[in-house]
Amino acid sequence: MRTIDWVDGAIELIDQTLLPHRVEVRRVTELPELIDDIQRLAVRGAPALGVAGALGVALIAASVRAEGGDEELDTAEVSRQAAQLREARPTAVNLSWGVDRALSKLDEGADEILAEALRIRDEDIAACISMGLIGADLTRELTGKDRVRVMTICNTGSLATVERGTALGVIQTLLEQDSLVEAFPLETRPLLQGARLTAWELQRMDAPFRLIIDSAGPFLLSRGIADAVFIGADRIAANGDSANKIGSFSLALAAKHAGVPFIVVAPESTVDLSTASGADIEIEDRGVDEVAGFGGVRTAPEGIGAVNPAFDVTPHELITAIVTDRRVILPSEGQSPATVPLGALRS
Amino acid sequence: MRTIDWVDGAIELIDQTLLPHRVEVRRVTELPELIDDIQRLAVRGAPALGVAGALGVALIAASVRAEGGDEELDTAEVSRQAAQLREARPTAVNLSWGVDRALSKLDEGADEILAEALRIRDEDIAACISMGLIGADLTRELTGKDRVRVMTICNTGSLATVERGTALGVIQTLLEQDSLVEAFPLETRPLLQGARLTAWELQRMDAPFRLIIDSAGPFLLSRGIADAVFIGADRIAANGDSANKIGSFSLALAAKHAGVPFIVVAPESTVDLSTASGADIEIEDRGVDEVAGFGGVRTAPEGIGAVNPAFDVTPHELITAIVTDRRVILPSEGQSPATVPLGALRS
Repeated sequence: MRTIDWVDGAIELIDQTLLPHRVEVRRVTELPELIDDIQRLAVRGAPALGVAGALGVALIAASVRAEGGDEELDTAEVSRQAAQLREARPTAVNLSWGVDRALSKLDEGADEILAEALRIRDEDIAACISMGLIGADLTRELTGKDRVRVMTICNTGSLATVERGTALGVIQTLLEQDSLVEAFPLETRPLLQGARLTAWELQRMDAPFRLIIDSAGPFLLSRGIADAVFIGADRIAANGDSANKIGSFSLALAAKHAGVPFIVVAPESTVDLSTASGADIEIEDRGVDEVAGFGGVRTAPEGIGAVNPAFDVTPHELITAIVTDRRVILPSEGQSPATVPLGALRS
Repeated sequence: MRTIDWVDGAIELIDQTLLPHRVEVRRVTELPELIDDIQRLAVRGAPALGVAGALGVALIAASVRAEGGDEELDTAEVSRQAAQLREARPTAVNLSWGVDRALSKLDEGADEILAEALRIRDEDIAACISMGLIGADLTRELTGKDRVRVMTICNTGSLATVERGTALGVIQTLLEQDSLVEAFPLETRPLLQGARLTAWELQRMDAPFRLIIDSAGPFLLSRGIADAVFIGADRIAANGDSANKIGSFSLALAAKHAGVPFIVVAPESTVDLSTASGADIEIEDRGVDEVAGFGGVRTAPEGIGAVNPAFDVTPHELITAIVTDRRVILPSEGQSPATVPLGALRS
């Protein structure tokens, strides 16, 4: 099952707000529904949002063409509605990227817009397959083991992409290659993507796994529970510093202390050479509500404050490898995205 | 307000299960009520459980005497009921310790049992005052600052003792000495003692503070948010390795990386010279239920497993100082509980 897809003239997507308790595929035929689904995080994850943006423009174009009969496409109207879509989550760069890439075919008509959106979808699928294969090979090489135990954080699986995922995609590939002994997903406070989504995906792929609270991950690494740590990335700077889900820094420090490879897995589009280092990445604070409770249950006293960084930055010297769909970079050996050419693989 | 006390012939205790939403002092006049309160964690924290055990024996003795009229105390009956109390939480060593210490006065009658229980209560209060003063002085010395920002985990405050607490007692002392800029309690998954209890205590003492999720603590230390980290301890081995709330190891590693003092605060009774090192401490796994939900809400899929260590062990080389009520030990400088004499202070 794909997280998001184009089926019979409309978008179909898994409503992630209902997971893990219910699996419901929503059929989205109107722009306002899609905007709402994006805003309430029914669809989330950077690569999946890029595809949602592109398919959303295809949906707009089809609807504008249908209203206009067989006449030429009203490009002004498509652009106007696409701008609304782009604003559904203004800080999600992948959403704008997907919208803009589909809009680049505006003058060629609705069919070409849809074809471009489907290309973006297919490229995402192919990139995840590629990361999985490269990452699985690299893991066996770095650990010197045929079968490995791995730790991960957040959700970087098929739910964050169209299929398979990034870091979790490597874990799925290891499973398919009979190289996975056990996976250890961290629950990932404050929004519990690990407990809610990654545990659900691992269960569906029938992978052996056990869930862990975030603060136990570093200690269990020190006691040898895992052979490697995999995480996704929000942004990778030119020097290899990586912005990842909050908690990643802590895992990286513990992995280094335990002598365990720490591997970042993300598509090439996550590499941002215009950001020199992690010091240039501004960290948004998401406020007190997420920290003071969960799922509508208030646990902390009223009237308190919080520090709630949305993500953290792992310095490149703590990163063993960065795996993209097109290359392997070894930051802890002095390599960086700025110096390693596309196509450079280890094996 | 004391967490637990002897008032007018009975035990009074704050029901911690209702915090932070409601403050209710329960009056306990019968043994079965006390056993129930201990089992449902209405009273918790190692030092407080020791006092609960001792006061419980006093309650038993008073009740047995009342039933027996003015005759000699039925010591066999007191012992029988005390054994029930000891079994309320079999793994809580402080509970047995408090029960046994009060029982040592069994042959001297109910009044002497009560006097011994009150001595235990008063010793706990005095030890917390002492740790606070020693810890605050040491913090200024180690940081070279008159006013400091501090991070802590779990609840080590008055709710875990009779008054003031251990690690949080140092923070309260810093506040009273105008040496506290801001405190950063971690929420402390899975049972959220930081969010529920420490945040409530800090609010009541009018301390400036902001709450943080556990996995953000290490990263924020690396970005300089705090000048020192304080934690309590469940057990301190002869070489200084310390068993603490899960998450402590991760903070210790990050504090070392950030060059920030990491200070363990616990009464002398926590030092266990019969345990040579952390490798000799068995770590209980508390099962999946605490990890699979949050505040009564099930968040993870049904049917999964978890790794849920009740505490972790911080190796002595990551500990800057151990502060007890009677000495200061500097493990990262090669000192240990086995070598530093009682009474050795730094200032």
